[in-house]
Amino acid sequence: MTATGIDRYPTRGRAETVIPRADPVVWAETAAAGPLDAAEITAFERDGFLAFDDLLTAGEVGHYRSELHRLTSHRPGADERWITEPGSQDVKSVFEVHKISEVFARLAADPRLVGRARQILGTDVYIHQSRINVKRGFGASGFYWHSDFETWHAEDGLPAMRTVSFSIALTDNDATNGSLMLVPGSHQTFVGCAGATPNDNYRTSLQMQEAGTPSEGALTRLCDSRAIHLCTGRAGSAILFDCNTMHGSGDNITPSPRSNVFIVYNSIDNTLTEPFAAPARRPTFLAAHDFTPLPYP
Amino acid sequence: MTATGIDRYPTRGRAETVIPRADPVVWAETAAAGPLDAAEITAFERDGFLAFDDLLTAGEVGHYRSELHRLTSHRPGADERWITEPGSQDVKSVFEVHKISEVFARLAADPRLVGRARQILGTDVYIHQSRINVKRGFGASGFYWHSDFETWHAEDGLPAMRTVSFSIALTDNDATNGSLMLVPGSHQTFVGCAGATPNDNYRTSLQMQEAGTPSEGALTRLCDSRAIHLCTGRAGSAILFDCNTMHGSGDNITPSPRSNVFIVYNSIDNTLTEPFAAPARRPTFLAAHDFTPLPYP
Repeated sequence: MTATGIDRYPTRGRAETVIPRADPVVWAETAAAGPLDAAEITAFERDGFLAFDDLLTAGEVGHYRSELHRLTSHRPGADERWITEPGSQDVKSVFEVHKISEVFARLAADPRLVGRARQILGTDVYIHQSRINVKRGFGASGFYWHSDFETWHAEDGLPAMRTVSFSIALTDNDATNGSLMLVPGSHQTFVGCAGATPNDNYRTSLQMQEAGTPSEGALTRLCDSRAIHLCTGRAGSAILFDCNTMHGSGDNITPSPRSNVFIVYNSIDNTLTEPFAAPARRPTFLAAHDFTPLPYP
Repeated sequence: MTATGIDRYPTRGRAETVIPRADPVVWAETAAAGPLDAAEITAFERDGFLAFDDLLTAGEVGHYRSELHRLTSHRPGADERWITEPGSQDVKSVFEVHKISEVFARLAADPRLVGRARQILGTDVYIHQSRINVKRGFGASGFYWHSDFETWHAEDGLPAMRTVSFSIALTDNDATNGSLMLVPGSHQTFVGCAGATPNDNYRTSLQMQEAGTPSEGALTRLCDSRAIHLCTGRAGSAILFDCNTMHGSGDNITPSPRSNVFIVYNSIDNTLTEPFAAPARRPTFLAAHDFTPLPYP
């Protein structure tokens, strides 16, 4: 609970709490404006995600992949935005790529992304977070199940579920190299996780998350009615998903790296307050406090 | 090199060596006898494995799964044949189930398995190893890439590549719960692995293998020409694979456990000698020295 009043999504308490979502999934009053059609809007609302086979052209993929390689080929000194694999110097993620890189800034502002995000969220949008992820293969670890909203609400003060993420494949994402898994329909349930947030939790949680993960019982119930969806697709494909859709990924022992760019759009009517369940704000490279709307079209 | 002469498959030396297979894949002179037809024999020879959609009936699956649950629900005292997850008391594997359990003894002697193994290997066969594997979900670890033959040759004295394994699914094996991955065609290449075998290596290698794993370069070359095959299938499906087919599996973060029974048949013309590259024999629950042929039909 904060100065803003009742916390509709309590988490990080003594016990796990499982409650229904209190926010709409699709905020637009009409789908008429596009670019998503009515069937896509319905699917997003039902499943909590939507897949696009060819969001980027092959030429664009090459362009963005080169930039990804440039950014991940070395970690500059003490910059916290570069995250390495546990026990290694291999770069796993680079955050705030829309500020670090003009190339990714252009992608983040691309009307194909911004238009879809605006349509779901029903307002102007701004970039809440951006990052590139590299899962290099030969045993790179995955990421355990979590709801991004749970973390962003607890640790960053994101008030409502009015935030969507694009994960865009820059290498082929196939059935064997640790692709993203989503639990269809899970966005309709909020799992408030047990256990207090440690100080400076983000320093370890970006390598391997512990606080903010659901119990085995809660996960089993979420997966009971709908089969887990494995997000496979060629480079250039993309997934748009709701901030509360439960997701995770396995490890990658294949020789094929899996690289993605991840851009999070938030409604300008849902800007950050103070963390709902953490001792202090996280750095702005994880949770932007620049709420300037993106121009559209 | 041992008393039996030249070692055709040197391994665990100072450097990795990659050489062509020196043995046939299919040893039978004619496929006329069945139960595998000519197309299946050809596919096995080319790929190093063969999948069967419904080897067991649903009733049989229930019967064997009950027995699996009985055997894995507790670990009896100091019995080395029960292997637990790293850092846990959860049972990951139970070895020598054809001796521990009358139920699995009957499965191992089943003509549907024995007949196919005899046909590939061209002689009477005996059980080299048997085990049940449980990958319980919620983060159970996988198994890194390896050739069973490399281990069995180095550590158990298996002379030739004249051995096949059945992996039979007792739960659904799907795209998300850490199913077996095979590299098609890899059985035609022997990767002699770098690094000496530690004393009592099996005590740790059954939890997580380190000695006897191929380099990233060798794996990349094996996977270059053929896409990795993910072995999905309903409970009751099975994979028959050559002892030198490179295989591994990722972790399983889903709530769906993956349980399999694994039975290895060796030709009675290929019985064990002394280890080719290890300080001492491993226990017989890993590598049988009872070479009694299985009756057939």
